Amino acid sequence: MSAMRLHGYFRSTASYRVRVALNLKRLSCDQFSHHLRKGEQRAPAYLAINPQGLVPALELDGGAVLTQSLAICEYLDEIAPDPPLLPADPLPRARVRAFAQAIGCDIHPVQNLKILDRLRALGLDEDAVTGWARTTIEEGLDACDRLIAGSPGRYCFGDAVTLADICLVPQLVNARRFGAVLRWPRLLAIEAACLSLPAFADAVPERQADAE
Amino acid sequence: MSAMRLHGYFRSTASYRVRVALNLKRLSCDQFSHHLRKGEQRAPAYLAINPQGLVPALELDGGAVLTQSLAICEYLDEIAPDPPLLPADPLPRARVRAFAQAIGCDIHPVQNLKILDRLRALGLDEDAVTGWARTTIEEGLDACDRLIAGSPGRYCFGDAVTLADICLVPQLVNARRFGAVLRWPRLLAIEAACLSLPAFADAVPERQADAE
Repeated sequence: MSAMRLHGYFRSTASYRVRVALNLKRLSCDQFSHHLRKGEQRAPAYLAINPQGLVPALELDGGAVLTQSLAICEYLDEIAPDPPLLPADPLPRARVRAFAQAIGCDIHPVQNLKILDRLRALGLDEDAVTGWARTTIEEGLDACDRLIAGSPGRYCFGDAVTLADICLVPQLVNARRFGAVLRWPRLLAIEAACLSLPAFADAVPERQADAE
Repeated sequence: MSAMRLHGYFRSTASYRVRVALNLKRLSCDQFSHHLRKGEQRAPAYLAINPQGLVPALELDGGAVLTQSLAICEYLDEIAPDPPLLPADPLPRARVRAFAQAIGCDIHPVQNLKILDRLRALGLDEDAVTGWARTTIEEGLDACDRLIAGSPGRYCFGDAVTLADICLVPQLVNARRFGAVLRWPRLLAIEAACLSLPAFADAVPERQADAE
């Protein structure tokens, strides 16, 4: 039904979020991979699509390009409201968005490839770089764990998947990758619940066509 | 009409965003300052309010606490829709959110006090730390400038203030603070237009009660 094009990368956690949102909404999308380690996201052809030089970017049917994974997920939620990615009422909506942003603003951009490469360029060795990523993730997910302490349920906020879960599950991939201590039983239980759903299971990095 | 309490800090650009949103909505709010340089945001009493140990946090009338400035702004937009902070249609909404997130995810959290202190702890000297912040802001605002290249108007997206402007103006304070080259005439024109509005002018850091 759709000629949308998702520009992403199998290992990009921000791309992973959009893959899950598309799957939950049952929206089809052609996928185009840009190899971040090789710097393909900074090629002129890609910068013409997304001047930020980041993945993901979603090209719509008419050629318009959307950037920023959280903005893309909210767009998909607005054009295809079922199932909703946010609760209906303003207060729980704000809590879900805050959790998503605790990951999308305060964890992921501080430990992504670009930042780690900048640390290397400043002379930090691999132990220090890995330690930076690990500490960022551990402290960030500690806060996330506390943000949902008052919200029981199968997922982060109750018994329906929200944007919070869509951010959490990809971030846990990076937590393992950088050797974080997985000290959050609730977050891991939510992850297991999510990965039992095809929308998440089909979006995991190792099942993408560009996986190495 | 309101007993909301905003926990912030005059120099926090994320708090500045919320101050503007409250002013635009004409919502009254008691303000509580937490001195970031003295680490007051990590005091147990504040961590009980916001487990992330970040400002801003908005305590609602009933005691509920909202965190993350972009989530707070969208909450305010939902409970007080006039004037709107986002366009009505999904596509322009996504563009405004993406611009806001280009600042809120990819610039601000990479150059905030917490990150700069971590760089100092790794042995970087002040020149390197300032350079880190300046480069983050310059590259980030370069991208922002390109994101609105196709959107003429008095503000980032047309002739009405949006969440994009609410993020841009505070970030330009930090651009100056860290000595960034202000190479974006359009962004500076938007800033001047915003600062001619009382909602922005009353929210600038130096006019807050806790300004030093």
